[in-house]
Amino acid sequence: MTEFQAKEMEEQEEQIENEAEDNKEAEDSAPAEEQTGQSEVNEETLRNKEEEIKKLQEEQDELKNRLLRVQADYENYKRRTNEEKIKERKFRAQSLVEEILPVLDNFKRALDVQIESEEAKSLKQGMDMVYRQLTDAMEKEGVKEIEAVGKPFDPHLHQAVMQVENDEYEPNTVVEVLQAGYSLNDRVVRPAMVKVNS
Amino acid sequence: MTEFQAKEMEEQEEQIENEAEDNKEAEDSAPAEEQTGQSEVNEETLRNKEEEIKKLQEEQDELKNRLLRVQADYENYKRRTNEEKIKERKFRAQSLVEEILPVLDNFKRALDVQIESEEAKSLKQGMDMVYRQLTDAMEKEGVKEIEAVGKPFDPHLHQAVMQVENDEYEPNTVVEVLQAGYSLNDRVVRPAMVKVNS
Repeated sequence: MTEFQAKEMEEQEEQIENEAEDNKEAEDSAPAEEQTGQSEVNEETLRNKEEEIKKLQEEQDELKNRLLRVQADYENYKRRTNEEKIKERKFRAQSLVEEILPVLDNFKRALDVQIESEEAKSLKQGMDMVYRQLTDAMEKEGVKEIEAVGKPFDPHLHQAVMQVENDEYEPNTVVEVLQAGYSLNDRVVRPAMVKVNS
Repeated sequence: MTEFQAKEMEEQEEQIENEAEDNKEAEDSAPAEEQTGQSEVNEETLRNKEEEIKKLQEEQDELKNRLLRVQADYENYKRRTNEEKIKERKFRAQSLVEEILPVLDNFKRALDVQIESEEAKSLKQGMDMVYRQLTDAMEKEGVKEIEAVGKPFDPHLHQAVMQVENDEYEPNTVVEVLQAGYSLNDRVVRPAMVKVNS
């Protein structure tokens, strides 16, 4: 598409240059007419001049329209480009975020084991801090865990993988999260996989 | 700057519209001259016409130049925008990467402790895997740890925080990394903090 536009533009430029040459020819021929002498200043010569003026004015209108059109295209292109830039900036982290989500899943799972010894507890404590630091870092870029437990089931945010019956929750409410969901600046990157109360 | 350009363009458009009106006035005045009768077809009328033609041709040349200039500006803008887009895409993860580097530091440090019990060893094993998965995820986005130990000291990649004397290494060679450095698609995000052999 861009290549096509570039070609089109090149052709337009060529056309403009050709027209410029035509103009030059017209200018060159003008003195020739004058050389025929003042005596031949007659109606026809005048009509020719007037036709030439009309033609030039039409060409000028056409040129002005083209100029306005190109300027409008240029303005539109700038506006679109800026809009795209803002959007891209908002979601620039998406690709890395998508790569990191499975890391968070495994991190969570590894920290979810029951431990007894002091040594393991101390290690786990350090790892809990690292996990929090990692989710904080992602939050700064706009990543949020999607709220689910106790919330009404929302197919945009939640993916129901199981139906359960649980008197403690309202019907059609998320009862448990099997895999956390995440959004990036309010756009869902991955829905939460949930159990829903029937 | 963009606002300035937009303003400039608006002014140009206004100018073009004004010229279009001038043109219209010129057209309107033409028939009035004709009404004065064929008898007055004289040298002066013809000269006026010729002057008008000359003026129109000059205006046309000016318009063509402007059109070429706007088209060239437009093309340049498109080219620059595309170049910027490619660059931005290449470094889009930079901001999140910068946030995650301190997480990697702490992760490394927490995994660097000596442990004895089976329980802690098992937890550590899981965490080693999570750490590798995290660095793999970042590598997919172009993040690489900067090579340092045994390499000649390079101020673009390494930040010397200590001079040591070590017979095992060549002079001016990195002996130890105190904090890992990282690059994103070959651009240094953070240099490695190192000890250098004197």
